[in-house]
Amino acid sequence: MARGRFISLEGGEGVGKSTQLRALAAALRARGHDVIETREPGGSAGAEAIRSLLLDGDAGRWTAGAEALLFAAARADHVAKTILPAVARGAWVLSDRFLDSSLAYQGGADGIGEAAIRQLHQVGSDGLMPDRTLLLALPAEEAAARAAARDRDGADRFGGRDAAYHARVAAAFAALAAGDPARFRIVDATGTADDVTARLLAALEGL
Amino acid sequence: MARGRFISLEGGEGVGKSTQLRALAAALRARGHDVIETREPGGSAGAEAIRSLLLDGDAGRWTAGAEALLFAAARADHVAKTILPAVARGAWVLSDRFLDSSLAYQGGADGIGEAAIRQLHQVGSDGLMPDRTLLLALPAEEAAARAAARDRDGADRFGGRDAAYHARVAAAFAALAAGDPARFRIVDATGTADDVTARLLAALEGL
Repeated sequence: MARGRFISLEGGEGVGKSTQLRALAAALRARGHDVIETREPGGSAGAEAIRSLLLDGDAGRWTAGAEALLFAAARADHVAKTILPAVARGAWVLSDRFLDSSLAYQGGADGIGEAAIRQLHQVGSDGLMPDRTLLLALPAEEAAARAAARDRDGADRFGGRDAAYHARVAAAFAALAAGDPARFRIVDATGTADDVTARLLAALEGL
Repeated sequence: MARGRFISLEGGEGVGKSTQLRALAAALRARGHDVIETREPGGSAGAEAIRSLLLDGDAGRWTAGAEALLFAAARADHVAKTILPAVARGAWVLSDRFLDSSLAYQGGADGIGEAAIRQLHQVGSDGLMPDRTLLLALPAEEAAARAAARDRDGADRFGGRDAAYHARVAAAFAALAAGDPARFRIVDATGTADDVTARLLAALEGL
């Protein structure tokens, strides 16, 4: 049986990852693919248990190092229990966030460093990388407005951080994309949802 | 105020670590020290939550990599929230297990490798090492008999493993002690509990 594909959607708060992941999955299913929709942190029973530890509680609940280790542990479970089995049976796996989120948030904005985050990923997940990573990008002022609107509705421990933090995350994502152009596609997240979905589909060319 | 001391007790299942930790703490308190008794995985609120994830469930719940990351995350929380604050205020911290258990179990017996475990400890806990590590040692046949007795009473995910696994753990501890004689003291765990406590106290010479 043909190996499937592993695709991650990345970007800061409020760029529309979750909505677009559902739309992209529907479009791929309409083309006849077996599609798995998943997310991080989470995506498997063990990883969802770790997700609760990560997202609940106050902002100072975990040190930056402990947080990076918990994200890597959740990812290891997600990879072993959900992603690799699905890809092995020929499915296309779409994940709302993956390693690049840890590189941008814990590695970049929190100061743990990219090299350390990659070491943790090697230990936990044997360094597995997506076949393609779609980075949804918005102009900074629009991203800030969307993130602020979400925070008013009840932020988790990450959405509730300040504008400077989100700016560091965006800069870290841009640098990651620039550093691995073969894997990354930067996708304009402005316009209608249908416009964005069409761009995401086009960005899967070659897979 | 004088800095306190950080002392770990190590060894396989059934060597008497928990009993001896209580006795050693009492002996040190009788000498006027402020003593904190703690344990791994656990020893702080966040680490105890991770402990539940680690010790409950079936033996295949986590991959070896995920397990190593969870132990390192729990340790990072334990170090930041319990050990470092206590040592800073002058207390003596006695921990039932620390890094060497991860090196022996996940690093050695589970095949993750010592170098990877040390990397995780660097990321999570800035590489903190005990001032002294007391390795309780029993002849293999006596250790196996004690471990088997415990397993009959309801093993957790670690105690329930087979004799060959426990033999690999014991060999890993012996190698760790041989590799760092300045920090380790190997303490004979045979004889009466009082005998063993007296040996442990003697093994704190110089602190």
